[in-house]
Amino acid sequence: MDTLSGRADLLVGSVIDSSTSLLQQQSHDIVRFAMGSPAAEAVPVAIFEELAAKAYTSDAFDYAATEGDPQLRQAVLDLLSTTGEATTPERLTITSGGMQGLDLFGKLFIDPGDLVVVESPTYTNGSATALAYGAELLEVGVDGDGLIIDELEAAVARAGRTPKAIYVIPTFQNPSGRTLSLQRRLRLIELARRWRSMIIDDDPYGMLRFEGENIPSLLSLAEGDPLVFAVRTFSKILAPGLRVGWVDCAPELQPLLISAKQTMDTCTNLPNQRLIAAFLSDGHLPEHLTVQRERYRERKLAMQRALQDQLGTSANWTDPEGGFFLWVDLPGVDTQVLFPAALAAGVAYIPGPAFSPSGRFADALRLCFASTTPDRIAEGVTRLRRAIDG
Amino acid sequence: MDTLSGRADLLVGSVIDSSTSLLQQQSHDIVRFAMGSPAAEAVPVAIFEELAAKAYTSDAFDYAATEGDPQLRQAVLDLLSTTGEATTPERLTITSGGMQGLDLFGKLFIDPGDLVVVESPTYTNGSATALAYGAELLEVGVDGDGLIIDELEAAVARAGRTPKAIYVIPTFQNPSGRTLSLQRRLRLIELARRWRSMIIDDDPYGMLRFEGENIPSLLSLAEGDPLVFAVRTFSKILAPGLRVGWVDCAPELQPLLISAKQTMDTCTNLPNQRLIAAFLSDGHLPEHLTVQRERYRERKLAMQRALQDQLGTSANWTDPEGGFFLWVDLPGVDTQVLFPAALAAGVAYIPGPAFSPSGRFADALRLCFASTTPDRIAEGVTRLRRAIDG
Repeated sequence: MDTLSGRADLLVGSVIDSSTSLLQQQSHDIVRFAMGSPAAEAVPVAIFEELAAKAYTSDAFDYAATEGDPQLRQAVLDLLSTTGEATTPERLTITSGGMQGLDLFGKLFIDPGDLVVVESPTYTNGSATALAYGAELLEVGVDGDGLIIDELEAAVARAGRTPKAIYVIPTFQNPSGRTLSLQRRLRLIELARRWRSMIIDDDPYGMLRFEGENIPSLLSLAEGDPLVFAVRTFSKILAPGLRVGWVDCAPELQPLLISAKQTMDTCTNLPNQRLIAAFLSDGHLPEHLTVQRERYRERKLAMQRALQDQLGTSANWTDPEGGFFLWVDLPGVDTQVLFPAALAAGVAYIPGPAFSPSGRFADALRLCFASTTPDRIAEGVTRLRRAIDG
Repeated sequence: MDTLSGRADLLVGSVIDSSTSLLQQQSHDIVRFAMGSPAAEAVPVAIFEELAAKAYTSDAFDYAATEGDPQLRQAVLDLLSTTGEATTPERLTITSGGMQGLDLFGKLFIDPGDLVVVESPTYTNGSATALAYGAELLEVGVDGDGLIIDELEAAVARAGRTPKAIYVIPTFQNPSGRTLSLQRRLRLIELARRWRSMIIDDDPYGMLRFEGENIPSLLSLAEGDPLVFAVRTFSKILAPGLRVGWVDCAPELQPLLISAKQTMDTCTNLPNQRLIAAFLSDGHLPEHLTVQRERYRERKLAMQRALQDQLGTSANWTDPEGGFFLWVDLPGVDTQVLFPAALAAGVAYIPGPAFSPSGRFADALRLCFASTTPDRIAEGVTRLRRAIDG
């Protein structure tokens, strides 16, 4: 089809995780450590059904306001007022999941050839979005304290130009589970100001801390600086299929976000906005989060125990204080080569190179501990060891 | 904010309908002819509530497959098999409303500077999407038989280059209500083949024919030609707040659509996909459509009678055989100037220039007859006449 444009080539070249669609076709016996979904048990289906009976008025199926349904907007403002991220209506735009927040950023800010910094490893679809707008990606490493700021400075110096944007998942990072330290957060904001770079502060997991001390977000540390564009979502704390999230950014951007969103999907689906608004205003969230945090802590510990039992010193893994993921290094093992054997053994994961635009991390993989019960976690890790043993 | 890119400027310059958000803030006493929503009475809320109890299993809130939930995909294939648009799984991709189908087209095909033909008048957000990808728009007039093909040929000759895409709403067009004749459909396909232009066949209203004979769609007339990219939606036949539609296009494009959609919103919200799948597979749609068609026929006639009674020979209006809209010419009246007076008199519409990227149609307006009862239609048109009389 010779009318296909250059833009489509960019998409073909992007780092979409092809193992996901492969997985969606697998049998139900697979232990699934691959997708970053909340536990099935964590979805409050009974409450949703009950709320639907109240929330499903005929106007709940009409077009929503593009910036979000007033009921949900108010409920989110109320929710955030109890956190370090209290905000105002003109900074808040409801989106179709966090992913649309990233897409909106790309549409507003990224032009072909722009330099965009991403963590290495990073969230596949986040870097793919930047690529879809023609960005050149600059991968900067992550260690136990998150993005390595010294490496960032050196990489930008080598690039000979400052980045248009710096894309970070500062808390319980996807895929590594690591958290950017307070000191590095402050340095990152300082550098962004010096370079006049935007920071995309993507934080889907921040409310799922099950250990350790809270660290203020980049959004709150920047105190209203328009350089910070914060992307948030209900996908991980409530349910991803709802496709509802929000953006918190400079008020001057809201009219642009509304214009852009009108050309993307008109508005976010309204029944689910109303369901979430009812869930929040009926006060269900605090208890829901308490239960989920404890659940995920137990599962992380179960996965770490199983890795210790099965792989011992032949592997290393992270120790996140929240979120969904462990990042596992398996020195000497090519995790892409291993993948079919692991599927055959009955366990699924995401190979490391899927999280790097340049295909780094051949001997690493991401495991999601959130969506699997401790018993199945032990079984899945045993299967993983069997696949490695060949 | 000096990091704001050129792309944002395109958005600022796009023809977003600012009157919509103004309207969303008005009191409930306004007769609303502005939004293109189905009648509130047409939304099968009771059935949705009943189906939700069945459809809301815990897996109904997880991520959906990016190409669409298998249950909905099968239900749509079954639905289409009863129409002139029978299709296959590899041509079908579920989208977050028809609007996302247009956005996907832009992301795949439109590069800055590309020529895109639009009808004049056309659907505001459709042309805005093309503008957001940097298209240069070529407006071609519409008459009683739809897009004027002679004018299209002449305009392309004058432009000195062939269009990348031709964007049409062939049936009960938004905003004019007009339908592209069979002969012109065939000529349009012929021209697209000669020019190697894509045709965006956007047909939200085709199933809402309440008079006259069905005309085969561009999609079906082209018999699988990859030049036709068809955009469809449940917004008008069921409810717009669901944000569920589909694209039917060449199978080679499906992997690109999936990659692109993953960087836009990951997947379409799943609870509403399941609701629609259940609605279709339980066989509710045929009766639903029968009732809606009769309802909309009555409302069109009520609006035409009211216009005749109130405005007589000082106005002209279209006579659509389906869909939602009348297009009204008011020679000598500036409908943008009239707008605040009309709102003050208690009636809302969309002024003509909102449907033209170059601001044509100063003395025309669009009225939606679908969402208002016949009594209120008569009242609304009376208020419109009062506003015109000053």
